[in-house]
Amino acid sequence: METYSATVAYKGVAFCGFARQPGLCTVQGELEHALELLFRRPVDTVCAGRTDAGVHARGQVVSFEVGEDELRERSLDSLCKSLNALTHDDISVLELALRPAGFSARFSATMREYRYFISTQGTPPLFMRDFCWHVPRPLDAAAMQEAANLLVGEHDFKSFCLAVSAEGKRTFRYVDQVIVEPVEVLGEQLLCVRVVGNAFLHSMVRTMVGTLVAVGRGLRDAAWVGEVLAACDRQAAGETAPAYGLVFWEVTY
Amino acid sequence: METYSATVAYKGVAFCGFARQPGLCTVQGELEHALELLFRRPVDTVCAGRTDAGVHARGQVVSFEVGEDELRERSLDSLCKSLNALTHDDISVLELALRPAGFSARFSATMREYRYFISTQGTPPLFMRDFCWHVPRPLDAAAMQEAANLLVGEHDFKSFCLAVSAEGKRTFRYVDQVIVEPVEVLGEQLLCVRVVGNAFLHSMVRTMVGTLVAVGRGLRDAAWVGEVLAACDRQAAGETAPAYGLVFWEVTY
Repeated sequence: METYSATVAYKGVAFCGFARQPGLCTVQGELEHALELLFRRPVDTVCAGRTDAGVHARGQVVSFEVGEDELRERSLDSLCKSLNALTHDDISVLELALRPAGFSARFSATMREYRYFISTQGTPPLFMRDFCWHVPRPLDAAAMQEAANLLVGEHDFKSFCLAVSAEGKRTFRYVDQVIVEPVEVLGEQLLCVRVVGNAFLHSMVRTMVGTLVAVGRGLRDAAWVGEVLAACDRQAAGETAPAYGLVFWEVTY
Repeated sequence: METYSATVAYKGVAFCGFARQPGLCTVQGELEHALELLFRRPVDTVCAGRTDAGVHARGQVVSFEVGEDELRERSLDSLCKSLNALTHDDISVLELALRPAGFSARFSATMREYRYFISTQGTPPLFMRDFCWHVPRPLDAAAMQEAANLLVGEHDFKSFCLAVSAEGKRTFRYVDQVIVEPVEVLGEQLLCVRVVGNAFLHSMVRTMVGTLVAVGRGLRDAAWVGEVLAACDRQAAGETAPAYGLVFWEVTY
């Protein structure tokens, strides 16, 4: 058997998250259904990061195993076209690649990047409506960056994990970068929070963003984020930012 | 009576174009209906550029006249919120401003900018699907820029005007800039054609883009665009690029 990876983009709104669930439209369900049609047997997939319902992906990576004979001389390019034809319109398989033996989209990943988009303009965003959180108030980006710097490094991120998912699990993670920067997309001014790290807990990026926005609004000062980390309690952190502002951007192997 | 302007963004897909048409959902129809509800009388509007069905706007400008007493001490900010509440979700009134007497969104405009987005990737674009033309072939941007340079200046653009609209009309226009440049939007690589000029004929930008794409694909060489201009005949030019790739970007007064 050979190991292949698919780089996959999707709009979150159409799916009940990434992970397969009986009777629901999910990204994994769509991909595995298409692979089963192509290879005439069930094909299990492993992903770099499970995304919740509503979360988008630009560079999700999914790995699976197929025998060389099963390709029946089809090129990866032609397989990629078939996967796109057989999956939901809001999924785009960007690239297929042959990987070394033992490759896992999940365990071989060394770095993951998420980007979260926020619109602070008075009127609701238009072109970017489906891809950003509308917070119609001025946000202090410098204070948010100061707070974000406290999240960089290896920490116990239990305060930033959905409480029920954290129970009895190791909640230490390494965050390499958190950058708060203005971006312009189709003429709309947005604030982008880029988070790069080795791995993430359930809803960790969205809780980080919700917490940073509390600082940006002046409800809390930057140092508060240090207290949130130290508390190791989800109740200490800010709100969970909505799913539709989050894009799973890129995975490094 | 005082003259006011509204800066308006809209997604083109929901509307049968800008111009009011009985029984159809149009941007002007939506705006004038909202103004009539607010001021309890019909209010005529003038726009900087009528856009066809499907064309988007980021910075359309619309002017109208209202007496100071009709505002009944409401601020422009509160009027702007009311207009947003009373119009279609895919229209966003970004700003209202008081203008000098005699101002016309149409006749006072000195420069107009349109941007056209093209995706050349193999798989259909995902996040930008509603805002770009998918041409799944490599395009020679340098050849397109060379051709675009021939369109700059004052010319008879009859070849670039919807034939029936050009009949018996003066078809000279001044084009200040045509820039072909790669842009990245939400991680998707696009080619953007920026066109700046004093005024435009019916479907002029879309015909320019369709013609430049023929050059980019290598079907024609750059010099051909000079012949198209000289022909003064719509049949000489390339196809009309689809409406949904075009954004009416900005107006200068």
